Amino acid sequence: MEKSGKGAFIVLEGIEGAGKSTAIRTVSDFLTESGRKVKHTREPGGTPLAEELRNAIKHEWQEKVLPVTEIFVMYAARAQLVENVIRPALAEGTFVVGDRHDLSTVAYQGGGRGVELSVLRTARHMAIGDFRPDLTFLLDISPELGFERVRKRAEASDRFENERLEFFRRVRQAYLDAAAEDSSIEVVDASRTETEVCADIRQRLEVFLCSRG
Amino acid sequence: MEKSGKGAFIVLEGIEGAGKSTAIRTVSDFLTESGRKVKHTREPGGTPLAEELRNAIKHEWQEKVLPVTEIFVMYAARAQLVENVIRPALAEGTFVVGDRHDLSTVAYQGGGRGVELSVLRTARHMAIGDFRPDLTFLLDISPELGFERVRKRAEASDRFENERLEFFRRVRQAYLDAAAEDSSIEVVDASRTETEVCADIRQRLEVFLCSRG
Repeated sequence: MEKSGKGAFIVLEGIEGAGKSTAIRTVSDFLTESGRKVKHTREPGGTPLAEELRNAIKHEWQEKVLPVTEIFVMYAARAQLVENVIRPALAEGTFVVGDRHDLSTVAYQGGGRGVELSVLRTARHMAIGDFRPDLTFLLDISPELGFERVRKRAEASDRFENERLEFFRRVRQAYLDAAAEDSSIEVVDASRTETEVCADIRQRLEVFLCSRG
Repeated sequence: MEKSGKGAFIVLEGIEGAGKSTAIRTVSDFLTESGRKVKHTREPGGTPLAEELRNAIKHEWQEKVLPVTEIFVMYAARAQLVENVIRPALAEGTFVVGDRHDLSTVAYQGGGRGVELSVLRTARHMAIGDFRPDLTFLLDISPELGFERVRKRAEASDRFENERLEFFRRVRQAYLDAAAEDSSIEVVDASRTETEVCADIRQRLEVFLCSRG
């Protein structure tokens, strides 16, 4: 099944509680089982400098953190990751499985915090040019259900995860708006059981891999 | 001599060895002596988050640090400093004395590393809009003489200060090019003795303060 050493960048996106971690394992296992080399990334982060920037932006500062600060730090980290990790991995035929990528910035900073998309596009162009994932799975779930799942896992409390339901409704809508305009984004109904979601992802992944000839 | 509670942002710029620290003291002492309230800033840095970003970008990473990464981190730090520190200080009539500001990015990233000025202007506009210093003293010196002075002080070895002479020739030229187009930038011949440079700065500062009526 291995296709001529050609790698692909496959990204998992979704709000808290959508089941990203499980989906990442599903994608990763599927690729490994079919003999492909897999590398994992997470954003923001994924290089030593990018991880440092991740810590800086996720920390709960006493000072006001401006939207443009978030955006610039995110894109600085993304530039480092794309250039130093993702591109080299793809070039040697590795499949890169990403825990978030650019779509998170569109959804969280754009949809969530109301930063204009034109501003995000300008920053993105400066940071990574026309680099884009080959395939994105958007795990779609209502914030209410997502939050309920997160609460059960008694999870995290960094600045992003402290935001309220209304914020995540806007994030979800921005995700869906982006998916409506980009055929490389597959919307997966994440309100179903883990088994159903995994089966769905494996099936779509199979189609994606076959379509690449 | 105090003028109606109106603050000003006065910036000191120059390559390594130009005598910025001494000049900062000169400006600061002059303002304090004339009864003005003074606040110091340094860039990148000057807020807790901005200082964290400063550390991140000055660290000697094993990975390649892209020009756009430097620019985005610099401007993220600058946005925080302008919004959270400089603007509030000016609003209450304080004189802010800055150890570097935007002109350093133009000179180092633009002149030194060859990033196009249009890119820097876009990032600057996104980060700080049309915010500008009221007065900038550019301490101009040849890299040769600057380096000789630094060597005597047996100074620093962070990534920026390890750069070579040729790099600093470009930085100096970018500084001078900017000064030629901006009447708020005063070029000070920093190859003279400390006493001469200080006297020159005090005199120009006096003119600036008088001109503000």
